[in-house]
Amino acid sequence: MSFLPEAALDELKDLLGPKGFSMDSDVLAAHNAEARGKFEGHAEIILFPASTEEVAKAVAICAAHDIAIVPQGGNTGRCGGAVADSKQVLINLKRMNRVIEIDGRDFTATVEAGAILQNIQEAAEEQDLLFPLSLGAEGTCQIGGNLATNAGGLNVIRYGNARDLCLGLEVVLPDGTVWNGLSKLRKDNTGYDLRDLFIGAEGTLGIITKATLKLFAQPKHVATAWIAVPSPECAIDLLALARRHTGDAIAAFELISSFAHDLSVTYLKGLTRPLATKTNWHVLIELTSSRPKDDLEVLLVDLLAQAVEIGLATDATLAQSEAQRKNLWAIREGIPEAQGYEGGSIKHDVSVPVSKVAELLKRGMVRADALIPGIRPCPFGHVGDGNIHFNFSQPATMDKQAYLAQWESLNSVIHDIVAELGGSISAEHGIGQLKRDELALRADPVKMRLLKEIKKALDVQNRLNPDKVVSFKHPDH
Amino acid sequence: MSFLPEAALDELKDLLGPKGFSMDSDVLAAHNAEARGKFEGHAEIILFPASTEEVAKAVAICAAHDIAIVPQGGNTGRCGGAVADSKQVLINLKRMNRVIEIDGRDFTATVEAGAILQNIQEAAEEQDLLFPLSLGAEGTCQIGGNLATNAGGLNVIRYGNARDLCLGLEVVLPDGTVWNGLSKLRKDNTGYDLRDLFIGAEGTLGIITKATLKLFAQPKHVATAWIAVPSPECAIDLLALARRHTGDAIAAFELISSFAHDLSVTYLKGLTRPLATKTNWHVLIELTSSRPKDDLEVLLVDLLAQAVEIGLATDATLAQSEAQRKNLWAIREGIPEAQGYEGGSIKHDVSVPVSKVAELLKRGMVRADALIPGIRPCPFGHVGDGNIHFNFSQPATMDKQAYLAQWESLNSVIHDIVAELGGSISAEHGIGQLKRDELALRADPVKMRLLKEIKKALDVQNRLNPDKVVSFKHPDH
Repeated sequence: MSFLPEAALDELKDLLGPKGFSMDSDVLAAHNAEARGKFEGHAEIILFPASTEEVAKAVAICAAHDIAIVPQGGNTGRCGGAVADSKQVLINLKRMNRVIEIDGRDFTATVEAGAILQNIQEAAEEQDLLFPLSLGAEGTCQIGGNLATNAGGLNVIRYGNARDLCLGLEVVLPDGTVWNGLSKLRKDNTGYDLRDLFIGAEGTLGIITKATLKLFAQPKHVATAWIAVPSPECAIDLLALARRHTGDAIAAFELISSFAHDLSVTYLKGLTRPLATKTNWHVLIELTSSRPKDDLEVLLVDLLAQAVEIGLATDATLAQSEAQRKNLWAIREGIPEAQGYEGGSIKHDVSVPVSKVAELLKRGMVRADALIPGIRPCPFGHVGDGNIHFNFSQPATMDKQAYLAQWESLNSVIHDIVAELGGSISAEHGIGQLKRDELALRADPVKMRLLKEIKKALDVQNRLNPDKVVSFKHPDH
Repeated sequence: MSFLPEAALDELKDLLGPKGFSMDSDVLAAHNAEARGKFEGHAEIILFPASTEEVAKAVAICAAHDIAIVPQGGNTGRCGGAVADSKQVLINLKRMNRVIEIDGRDFTATVEAGAILQNIQEAAEEQDLLFPLSLGAEGTCQIGGNLATNAGGLNVIRYGNARDLCLGLEVVLPDGTVWNGLSKLRKDNTGYDLRDLFIGAEGTLGIITKATLKLFAQPKHVATAWIAVPSPECAIDLLALARRHTGDAIAAFELISSFAHDLSVTYLKGLTRPLATKTNWHVLIELTSSRPKDDLEVLLVDLLAQAVEIGLATDATLAQSEAQRKNLWAIREGIPEAQGYEGGSIKHDVSVPVSKVAELLKRGMVRADALIPGIRPCPFGHVGDGNIHFNFSQPATMDKQAYLAQWESLNSVIHDIVAELGGSISAEHGIGQLKRDELALRADPVKMRLLKEIKKALDVQNRLNPDKVVSFKHPDH
């Protein structure tokens, strides 16, 4: 009935009990499905361990029977990284969901890997502290998955990626050994940086079971503005000016094309256009401060006046209330939904140096149109991180399926430009299966050699999330 | 005449020319000596390559002749990490000292590994930008060494360690291959984090030849205060209060014992006592801001008033001029020199979680006195990073050499306490040879196994800085 020998099944059932083990098809269906539908898992067994010890023992049992394992968090990934085939065992960490400690002296949170991101944010906020990692899936994604994929999100310009927010990890290794690297230390130079090796490894080197995270003072003031800018070049120069002018106060700096802006205000209910004048490009900037007294509005108005004076901005409006602020963010965050009303959308998860964003957009629009005449670019996103969501809506009159059939061709065109500009084909979402073969083809062969050497060294039997990120089966240089 | 075959010597001479190759005993003497005198090198050949290509080819020549290599930067380390034996070739990067580019749009510096830290700071400052890494040796240390040892220094609380300030690296691998990981990207999730593996590896996995560094807005305002605090516990609570109160404005937060304070103001010329009242513990706090207009003094005065009100501070004074500010920093920075006038000093490079600093001091003072009655603790340093320079001056009447002979015994006592508190025996300076065997004995065996697996994977022949950090010869678990 199963690919697992009866002995292994019995061992796992004994170890984990009825709550920790399932072969139920409904349960499996939920965990085999990936949100975007590009990948479908076929796992026949899923484990829900309740402790690090259970993870470690389950991994050891699988190792003894030469069974491969796929770790899974909130299953909100999009690259097939947490998808298992029928001969692999899924290990989902959702029962390990405790926020173990919020420490107001060390400014740290210690959490189990299955803790929901939003629960960590809220636990910090209860003690007037901030855990700044913030992204669309925060209500369901798990911190273990965020760390395994080095998640980005909205506040990277100020606080960094998931990697930058982690002080220590506990990890179960491919043979079931536990590496206890939980740590609140801010300085520790005792050997190679194991922590950062597991962060971003997408569960291919070890299963993250606990983490110590950095917390920050909770912001007390916010100032938000919507700015009309003549061009992406101006947005980049405005960012540099803002960085110099506001110090470390920039919490978000988002570029929005007029097409994206128009879709949002047209299709989504209850949104108000921020500016009366028409413009091709918009910037949403937000400053925050945790000082008890501060006047960010003055700081922002000064910045905007200067920007207008030197021609980096043509118009701007400050949110005068929380409702106005929410309106600005709703325009920005509503873009993907609004795009849905305009037919098919082909998306990219790319980054380039901040200074190259304008060039990426320029070349990308020209070459996309050459591939699919009439294609409608809908770029928006984290220009402050060089990470534009370079989406393209289909030509108005084209058949949706015919358009979406061009997904990989368009990706290839954009990724070529990204390569020309020294960028990355995976800014936020990771490699998984989706970009594994493309990475092998595009990456520096020296880098690929190093990735494989590391995978071989730490997972000798290739038993932990095999064929994700790097594969020994697939062709490359 | 040399351990190197004539053929290899000729190849290296041909490759590097007279400026790039030396067997001169005076030249070698300077590079074989380590500042603190604990380690002495015996290299008979030193190479001074002028380019990455030359480093790569020199490494390949050495590899072909099975010769081990020791990379060296400014030779300011203290742990024997850049010290070579007579059968090893030293490669010093001082000719690769260019600041290649300061980029005011990307807020990056691209530099060769031999660039002097201070030159990078100055090049950034010329464009009104800040490279925040700052430490005692900055006038002579090289950025490649800073990165190889993940240097800390004064501004870690605000800007992080060297690791946190690096976006990309170029590295020559043990076989002479070049990994080009130079990058200005703020987001890049394409495979394992190679960059952070080479950072802090002390030249045992590769030779860093170039780096892309993060820059920040140059501070325009500074406010500095000297504060009398009742105890280290109060200093820790004051830090937490300051973090909440000032947001990200804290640039330095240093704890100074009264013994350390008294030595400085007694022995060093021209220094003024900041406070009239006597106190057991002092804090030096500095806020900075890069906003064009700001009032950090008001922010700091508010903080101090609150601290006094709730009993975390008993007295405080604000620097009212740059001269007063310099006086405060001279007291802090003069401590090691002043300690020299009181006889022998035994030092530690340890860290604990910030919240455990008080306990470290308490236990350390008691147990040190049990080992050496009358010993005079002289703790000071970066309490904001949990990184106290836990120095001990000799008992007033003890013979200096007899005291210094207890160096390792006292280290062992303090390191035991550090272990009890979840701390690190190397906060800033790394492992090198000095702490290699102690690390092997004290560290989690799982960690040691991983370190060795990584070293074996990336330096199969154990030819790059062998027996630093990890050794395959020495005993451990």
